[in-house]
Amino acid sequence: MSEGLTRQLLDAESRGSAYEHAIRQTPVSPLPLFQGDGTPVFIPSGQVSVRDETIGSVLPGLMSHCQRWEPTGARRVFTGKRVAVLFSGGPASGGHNVVAGLLDQLKGNELWGVRQGPQGLLRGDLFPIDLATRSSWVNTGGFDWLGSDRTKIKTPEQLATVCEVVRRHQLDGLVVIGGDDSNTNAAFLADALQAVGCSVVGVPKTIDGDLQWGEDVPISFGFDTATKIYSELVGNVLQDARSSGKYWHIIKLMGRSASHVALEVALQTHPPITLISEEVAANGDSLSALMEDLADQVVRRAQKGYGYGVMVLPEGVIESVGELKTLVASLNHLMATHHDELQGLSLTDRVTRMGEWLPSSQVTLLRELPDAIATQLLKDRDSHGNIQVSQIPTETLFVAWLTRILSQRTLPPGFVFQPIHHFFGYEGRCGAPTRFDAVYGYNLGCVAAALVLNGATGVMASVGQFQADWQVAGLPLVAMLSPEKRGSEVSWVIEKSLVSLGSPAFRYFASRRQVWCDTDAFSSVGPRQWTGELAYEYPISVALNHALPSLQWREPACVLPSRS
Amino acid sequence: MSEGLTRQLLDAESRGSAYEHAIRQTPVSPLPLFQGDGTPVFIPSGQVSVRDETIGSVLPGLMSHCQRWEPTGARRVFTGKRVAVLFSGGPASGGHNVVAGLLDQLKGNELWGVRQGPQGLLRGDLFPIDLATRSSWVNTGGFDWLGSDRTKIKTPEQLATVCEVVRRHQLDGLVVIGGDDSNTNAAFLADALQAVGCSVVGVPKTIDGDLQWGEDVPISFGFDTATKIYSELVGNVLQDARSSGKYWHIIKLMGRSASHVALEVALQTHPPITLISEEVAANGDSLSALMEDLADQVVRRAQKGYGYGVMVLPEGVIESVGELKTLVASLNHLMATHHDELQGLSLTDRVTRMGEWLPSSQVTLLRELPDAIATQLLKDRDSHGNIQVSQIPTETLFVAWLTRILSQRTLPPGFVFQPIHHFFGYEGRCGAPTRFDAVYGYNLGCVAAALVLNGATGVMASVGQFQADWQVAGLPLVAMLSPEKRGSEVSWVIEKSLVSLGSPAFRYFASRRQVWCDTDAFSSVGPRQWTGELAYEYPISVALNHALPSLQWREPACVLPSRS
Repeated sequence: MSEGLTRQLLDAESRGSAYEHAIRQTPVSPLPLFQGDGTPVFIPSGQVSVRDETIGSVLPGLMSHCQRWEPTGARRVFTGKRVAVLFSGGPASGGHNVVAGLLDQLKGNELWGVRQGPQGLLRGDLFPIDLATRSSWVNTGGFDWLGSDRTKIKTPEQLATVCEVVRRHQLDGLVVIGGDDSNTNAAFLADALQAVGCSVVGVPKTIDGDLQWGEDVPISFGFDTATKIYSELVGNVLQDARSSGKYWHIIKLMGRSASHVALEVALQTHPPITLISEEVAANGDSLSALMEDLADQVVRRAQKGYGYGVMVLPEGVIESVGELKTLVASLNHLMATHHDELQGLSLTDRVTRMGEWLPSSQVTLLRELPDAIATQLLKDRDSHGNIQVSQIPTETLFVAWLTRILSQRTLPPGFVFQPIHHFFGYEGRCGAPTRFDAVYGYNLGCVAAALVLNGATGVMASVGQFQADWQVAGLPLVAMLSPEKRGSEVSWVIEKSLVSLGSPAFRYFASRRQVWCDTDAFSSVGPRQWTGELAYEYPISVALNHALPSLQWREPACVLPSRS
Repeated sequence: MSEGLTRQLLDAESRGSAYEHAIRQTPVSPLPLFQGDGTPVFIPSGQVSVRDETIGSVLPGLMSHCQRWEPTGARRVFTGKRVAVLFSGGPASGGHNVVAGLLDQLKGNELWGVRQGPQGLLRGDLFPIDLATRSSWVNTGGFDWLGSDRTKIKTPEQLATVCEVVRRHQLDGLVVIGGDDSNTNAAFLADALQAVGCSVVGVPKTIDGDLQWGEDVPISFGFDTATKIYSELVGNVLQDARSSGKYWHIIKLMGRSASHVALEVALQTHPPITLISEEVAANGDSLSALMEDLADQVVRRAQKGYGYGVMVLPEGVIESVGELKTLVASLNHLMATHHDELQGLSLTDRVTRMGEWLPSSQVTLLRELPDAIATQLLKDRDSHGNIQVSQIPTETLFVAWLTRILSQRTLPPGFVFQPIHHFFGYEGRCGAPTRFDAVYGYNLGCVAAALVLNGATGVMASVGQFQADWQVAGLPLVAMLSPEKRGSEVSWVIEKSLVSLGSPAFRYFASRRQVWCDTDAFSSVGPRQWTGELAYEYPISVALNHALPSLQWREPACVLPSRS
């Protein structure tokens, strides 16, 4: 073994990969507003209307602050403030740069990290973030600088606990980096922490792309990296499908109930078939009709000489099939009510019994479901509780159903349907950030720091207006809340932003998809590049929806903020 | 929708992704030997010994050619030759550059592509490759320039058909780009095509890394790209595991029976646990002992505060468990012999009956197997024939077994074993090549062209001797063949190169793995870069095994070959 090489490998173990080592040394560009001494002054610049007036009785303290905050152009030096920051929910690339942006803009003040997200906040598990550690984390993927979890802070007891922690640590501000749920939580926290004089600022994070707010929040950080990772993988599989000439790859993509991820990946790679859950729901298709339609496309492609392909499914697609939701709800009810009667019966017998109780359309669907899925829906609920539609393995369902109906059709000579299924999810949440997420996350951190220092609370940090060279603001969270009825209870939530069928991104996709299916005109987008022109491309769906003139974006002139 | 943007998107559809567009314009560097006018002269430079003398009676025609070919330093201009090239087997990145290298070195001669691999050769489906199309394919991933398939050409009838095709197309040479099987085939083809004066040259391709031959074939093209893709994904999942703090990811990696891919990915990313099939086989562990050992490691990590992790499994790991092979063989036999008796029996009853027929150690293993696996092994063989060990879903087996035994242990407080399984395979075969595979593949094509023009046959193109600035040669395929007994028949094959437990790469891995498990010192290697220092790294296992002084390699001075 060469000694030089062994030393190189051991060095790499202590400093991380060569890639991470290189990107950590790249400066990140603050927007011009955040360059120079002091902090930009932000002030309330106008009332924003709420979505439902009754929120006034739920969060009265925030109603008087339902204002948009904007920079005045003036600067001011703040010192001696104590700010804490936490990650909430699943990781997204760019999160470490939000913390780096906070650190840089909080110069002269203190930044504390909350370990393990909301749970750590409840435990009061805080640690000071030293500026010296910044260089180990900047530009890297993951949430491990702080850790994260999914605890929701909502009950009066939890809110009181947080008040106590804030008091004990003398915090002037709390920055919550999270998705729609976490930013909803942030609104309630802001209301509760007014009593102890602590600002709460939210930062929009999610790979799912379902947290958007007009031109001000055109996207969240993490979406660009995740979709560029999935796009490379889908592009590779498209290339493999054509090179091998025999497989149909059925690929489920992470993204919860919205289909932004699937739509972006489709726009990047042009797979023969991509389903959009919002369209499936709008069409009200039955599962059977949906499958027949997919089988038609598979056969049509084979007739054109393409006996292979790729089908992209959004994670939430089967939840968007109304009849399946109804069937699962009925089965949950029947399995509970007739528990004793069903004990010991085989699958076939259970299906027969259900046939006596269910309406005929539901019986048809139940009999059409692949055996493995029917077994899952009809197994004893004792230990597992109710089955959720989201627990049904989508890829397996599609593969089994399509295999069955294609085996009953006359196929073009030589064509055999050979499906392979995939799920791309976890590998996209913690990748090395794209240049976009690195710069976008960093500037979101700068905005959040400035908002906290200027005393804004109950606001979301915004870096948006891409068509106008990236403008920043603070947006009142209370204006984003809508009432959601669950039984007799009303919850206030930030509604998930779904794919709009009228949006330019969807319309462009819809105008091209049949060509992509018929001509094999896919695109293999390759790996994310950190330098050069390729490093500077907006997500296509964002560029389309916000009428940007081109996919390219430019980095603000790279001047590092001066430090006191 | 912005018109400029729409135009940009439609342009991209016609020319491929921005990444592909950029890399296709990058020149690839031929080794100094291949720069300048004419073609380097190669001559036989010494007899090479065969592995088994009896090959002489099988391939008498090749025995007299069992020579190593080397360049003399002289150059000669060849014209008017007709050469065909085909891809065989699964795709690997760098294949298009082999064709580009052939095209460039064959200047003044003709290159014909064989459509769809060996099957296309049997059909005589050839097309002239125009130099003008080179720029659409160079540096891109996939095998779709020609297509590929897995047909084996071995019978006398098939060999006669190929002779006829070669005669009809007046071919002077045939280049076979493939793995161990395809290069074995190439030896038999070379023997048969001597009669029609056609040279046959093999080019080593496989992502599995199991086609190696000392310093001359330190690796095949495709391995570097595939392992760098898998390493990025495994690194991302390692980062996700730590960021989320709760999941154990069980990742199976493609690579057939050898564990080179898993070993390389482990060296790149340092997962807490990586199994190496060759070690499992050498230890002769029972499946139960293996699982208990893994459970020990999981608990040990949880005790150190890491209630999460990543476990990397080579595709062939369960085939390396001797007792499982024995059990599956016994069950295949018993299921066939006692077919009628077993009809209609439930899983439990079948297990009971098997208990009466099997030796007790096998009964124990059968009862330990997760239900889903036992069901698979005991289902009727009518339509499916014998079950192969490789059909058992490895990730599912590991997840189910580990979940069961961990549920019976006392675990550290707060630790819950939450496994998620993955299979990374197809997404690594057709990615945009690394710079290494681009340059390596290209120069393999140059060597193959020179060998064919110089009249060498039955040889494999070699670009190796990395420690000595990349030397080239032609290696006699007949010297690589070993006899393999299958029942009473003897097949001659190029043996798969497995991971040697004495190799520097394995020893380095073995010396570090407990540290990686105990300290969470993983590495997130990030996406492949096409430019800059990061683009020039050898696979770590190759660098270790060939005692290279560093991971870095340098590109030969980039002078494009002049064209007539």
